[in-house]
Amino acid sequence: MSEHKTIDMAAIQMLDRAKEIGFLTTFDRAKAQEPRCTFGNTGICCRICLQGPCRILPKKPGGNKGICGAADYTIVARNTVRYIAGGAAAHSDHGREIAEVLLSVAEGRVHDYKVTDADKLVKVAKKIGIETEGREVMAICKDVATAALAEFGRVDETKELTWINAYTNEERLNIWRKTAIMPSGINLSLAKLLHQTHIGVDSDPVNIIFGGLKAALCDIDGQHLATDLSDILFGTGVPVVTEANLGAIKEDKVNIALHGHNPLLSQMVVKAAKELQDEAKAAGATGINLVGICCTGNEVLTREGVAIATNFATQELAIMTGAMDAMVVDVQCIMPTLRSAAECFHTKIVTTMPIMKIPGSYHFAFDEHHAVDSAKEIIRLAIDAYKNRDKAKVCIPNIRNKVVAGFTLEAMYNIFAKVNPENPIRVIVDAIEAGEIKGVAALIGCNNLKGTHDHNHTTIAKELAKNDVLLIATGCSAQAHALAGMMNGDAVKEYAGEGLKKFYARLNAVAGLTEELPLMFHMGSCVDNSRCQDLATALATEMGVDYAQVPYVVSAPEAMSEKAVAIGSWNVAYGNPTHVGVIAPTVGSQLVNDVVTKIAEDVFGGFFFWETDPVKASERMVEILEERNWKNAMRKKANDAKEAN
Amino acid sequence: MSEHKTIDMAAIQMLDRAKEIGFLTTFDRAKAQEPRCTFGNTGICCRICLQGPCRILPKKPGGNKGICGAADYTIVARNTVRYIAGGAAAHSDHGREIAEVLLSVAEGRVHDYKVTDADKLVKVAKKIGIETEGREVMAICKDVATAALAEFGRVDETKELTWINAYTNEERLNIWRKTAIMPSGINLSLAKLLHQTHIGVDSDPVNIIFGGLKAALCDIDGQHLATDLSDILFGTGVPVVTEANLGAIKEDKVNIALHGHNPLLSQMVVKAAKELQDEAKAAGATGINLVGICCTGNEVLTREGVAIATNFATQELAIMTGAMDAMVVDVQCIMPTLRSAAECFHTKIVTTMPIMKIPGSYHFAFDEHHAVDSAKEIIRLAIDAYKNRDKAKVCIPNIRNKVVAGFTLEAMYNIFAKVNPENPIRVIVDAIEAGEIKGVAALIGCNNLKGTHDHNHTTIAKELAKNDVLLIATGCSAQAHALAGMMNGDAVKEYAGEGLKKFYARLNAVAGLTEELPLMFHMGSCVDNSRCQDLATALATEMGVDYAQVPYVVSAPEAMSEKAVAIGSWNVAYGNPTHVGVIAPTVGSQLVNDVVTKIAEDVFGGFFFWETDPVKASERMVEILEERNWKNAMRKKANDAKEAN
Repeated sequence: MSEHKTIDMAAIQMLDRAKEIGFLTTFDRAKAQEPRCTFGNTGICCRICLQGPCRILPKKPGGNKGICGAADYTIVARNTVRYIAGGAAAHSDHGREIAEVLLSVAEGRVHDYKVTDADKLVKVAKKIGIETEGREVMAICKDVATAALAEFGRVDETKELTWINAYTNEERLNIWRKTAIMPSGINLSLAKLLHQTHIGVDSDPVNIIFGGLKAALCDIDGQHLATDLSDILFGTGVPVVTEANLGAIKEDKVNIALHGHNPLLSQMVVKAAKELQDEAKAAGATGINLVGICCTGNEVLTREGVAIATNFATQELAIMTGAMDAMVVDVQCIMPTLRSAAECFHTKIVTTMPIMKIPGSYHFAFDEHHAVDSAKEIIRLAIDAYKNRDKAKVCIPNIRNKVVAGFTLEAMYNIFAKVNPENPIRVIVDAIEAGEIKGVAALIGCNNLKGTHDHNHTTIAKELAKNDVLLIATGCSAQAHALAGMMNGDAVKEYAGEGLKKFYARLNAVAGLTEELPLMFHMGSCVDNSRCQDLATALATEMGVDYAQVPYVVSAPEAMSEKAVAIGSWNVAYGNPTHVGVIAPTVGSQLVNDVVTKIAEDVFGGFFFWETDPVKASERMVEILEERNWKNAMRKKANDAKEAN
Repeated sequence: MSEHKTIDMAAIQMLDRAKEIGFLTTFDRAKAQEPRCTFGNTGICCRICLQGPCRILPKKPGGNKGICGAADYTIVARNTVRYIAGGAAAHSDHGREIAEVLLSVAEGRVHDYKVTDADKLVKVAKKIGIETEGREVMAICKDVATAALAEFGRVDETKELTWINAYTNEERLNIWRKTAIMPSGINLSLAKLLHQTHIGVDSDPVNIIFGGLKAALCDIDGQHLATDLSDILFGTGVPVVTEANLGAIKEDKVNIALHGHNPLLSQMVVKAAKELQDEAKAAGATGINLVGICCTGNEVLTREGVAIATNFATQELAIMTGAMDAMVVDVQCIMPTLRSAAECFHTKIVTTMPIMKIPGSYHFAFDEHHAVDSAKEIIRLAIDAYKNRDKAKVCIPNIRNKVVAGFTLEAMYNIFAKVNPENPIRVIVDAIEAGEIKGVAALIGCNNLKGTHDHNHTTIAKELAKNDVLLIATGCSAQAHALAGMMNGDAVKEYAGEGLKKFYARLNAVAGLTEELPLMFHMGSCVDNSRCQDLATALATEMGVDYAQVPYVVSAPEAMSEKAVAIGSWNVAYGNPTHVGVIAPTVGSQLVNDVVTKIAEDVFGGFFFWETDPVKASERMVEILEERNWKNAMRKKANDAKEAN
């Protein structure tokens, strides 16, 4: 009886199977951790030095502070911003790896990679102030890659990060400058934040949180350049039609899952798989079938149309099908227990990045000079494994749903341009002004088994759609919708309100796609939250209002990773109201919790709110969209202009 | 009855006083945290994502791993190396701040700072490969400062850190290269380590620990350049005679404590205090009296002869004297409760660095262009406070001990040169070879109230001295000895074994100091552990053996901060056996604990050992010194040389 654990029927089947074979999944492990330690869960356990752990114990004399004297607000603030540091480090380091490869391409040092989207290269170069007129592609490429790497190395605190500086409007940059959260270097800001939160350094929770926000801005900077440089290297996604859920795993094929976050090697696996189909056939399969999990999945979905197998919480269950021949993992959100799950079957687990190993797995250390060779070796390993597949153990849930995805901002603009060629973003603004849609919600983030897997994601999407909110999605949230069959035109018919239906009908009439537009635009992986923010920026610009007045909300219904904390935090700094569907470990300090849920709004216009009930969360988001001040702001602007004439 | 809390009689008096006035000190808070949470205390509580906290619960089905599947060894390894990241960030960021000021000096942008020790500048420049012949001091200075800043900004992983490369022998560098722990950039390594320890990245404990060791090497690199550049700016310490303990606070003077770690502003306070003595007299005091706490105290002790008030655990008690007019704090190891302690009296708490604030305190943000002005304002604040001092509340323990300190490596060499002008380090090697001393022990690190304050420090020093071990000391450990009256010639008479006494007698006969040499050479602050390692390097070079064969041990009897974890870790990577007097949070994983206490020795020659009993710890250290393989190594080398002839 696994129904309360997940809403995904395929997952339910596989959970029962895991139980049969005695494999304890993440769902069992989540149960084992109940009830959570209240101190840790609310943020008031400090382990920043070796005297503790210190827990806030107000009833014990001397227990209302840590041994060093840190109050609850200091402890909670420090713990919170160290989450941001971890998340920003993960996202940005991913971006840095991409930048290193792009530089190698520019300098002609690698053959496996090339500039695939030269238009994007020029667009990015122009945006960040690099001369493009009359220059060779490779010269521009070198400057862009160098500018990206400079984001990581900069130690001169009088300078500012290039990317966010280029992609954010001046009013917002000034707010960040005024609050001293505008970063100069990514790695510098992270190191300084670690220092700031060392024992006996900062005890001022507001100063600590501002240090955290600086790191959060490094997170979006690293994300943005990761997105841009990936597009340049591998192409900017266009609409694709594929399928999602464990039924995408094929009994008659060599199945390889691409899992993690960094597309550098997985893109090469996609390339090599095309070449090695015959070898798979020689082994008795009908070919090679690639499927994606987590954000590496989203990367190859967006650019290559690779199907989605599943998302974070259910990654082990892909192996329970007995038909997964290899799982290729790079970095982030990869369960080490994939290896023990693989032991129950013939599956090979392949790690590919030097900073990510799983004891007992195959390791092919990523090397930009031999990436295709590694990819081929990995595929051959999978083909070998396929030969050892025990057919009696194969049990693939017959569940797969149509997915229409690949909606980079460029892809969305291409469609909007069919309605308004001069000014594509106007299509959304017109619909907002007409009251057809209430605004835009970005559905993002992870899975978190403090709730039922994917329940919050899908419920919130349905509720918001019903209320005529235009949905965009990334990461495991996007995958949740895809797995549930909501990422296609049928879902619009089933769940969208009348206004949203009209909006979609107008677009579908001209879009010229083979499929109708889906209920939510899948904008990509978690670094592609930069695409979402670019959309928000475009809305602010087109509406002529501040970010904080745009009817734009963000929801991380099942936030789990440090990256999610970082993403949420820069969203708040951008002025975006940000829902989180788990209770955040800030509640141990009323002061810190008030700062991030209330006072933040006074400073940035954005704020967090925690709501575990997805229906209530949706109601609040709709309210917030209606409360956003764009109408007054636009009216005032129009009046001012009239008076000025 | 505070006897079991500390061995310091002055502290005992002040603890009773704190009790009288109802102020709960860190000793009360430490008691409130008993018993510690076993999960956190042994390292098997994971809070790296928002699904947990996860605690290893082997008896609960599914509870032997975290929700993500991380085993105990992954959780323990991740927690451990994140300590290293925090420590390395703190030390190195301190170094970076100094480097920024040195660059400003070189570029003529500041007037409050100058090159005080041009000889050291040239020595460092030569060591790191900067041309010095026929060049202006400021040109060399600019290159040195730029090289220091480059350590933080470097993102090219094919390059290596300059400082450790210059100050470490080739054999050891090759071990680090072979194990892939040789860092390129400090901030890059820290960011990558955060990424590596993000949820779902590395689960291989050995790979994680190697990532941690890379960060630890960044720690020593940052420390070394912090020491060097501080010497260049403020002078390289020479022997000083002063006093230690709360009796150094003077009833008839304006008392200002300098507390924290970074000497940038405190050096200016020392300078300004000399100028403003008359203002203090005008206010009715007989002058200004500066005292030091923690490593800022050690910095101004070493260079300016400022007395030691107390060390980490007892910092609040300095305020309980009622005669502390201002406490000026910069970064690290500063208790936020200084502010509440100050509220019981007239004391002003002054924070001075942008990343370190205490709510309700005075903040003078450090600015290299106006440092002396700030220092003067701070002193005037203290003078004003003095006017409000309630004489009835003044109660200064009549305990002060003579301190002979200021033993930078240069200062030690100056003395050794009186015995052996050609080759000063030979003085120690001769004594070792003659069996007069058993070797050298570096006594370092913090206070940790898991034990009795300063008991481990002083007991270990006495035990080792009795066994003819030459002692060097830094940080709060050095201060513990000074507070206890062991940092002078009388202590040699009282505690040293016969061999060590002979060694000292030979030096005293020629040293030409006004005071006899002390029982331990106080080498400085915690960044000055670089000086200790330079001594170990010199010993290895002079003896012609590997680091791991030198009779050199390290002890952190009361390790507390993340910095201590970083320091211990690079000591192990250097081949040094490293005692820690508290049980480390690695014991939750037998595997990780074995790696750091046993397997590390096979790879690096150095290893950790945990022993809370100071007598047992000392016995083990003496055994280790006797087991070190220098005799065989030297004999083999001599034979090889003979055969080669």
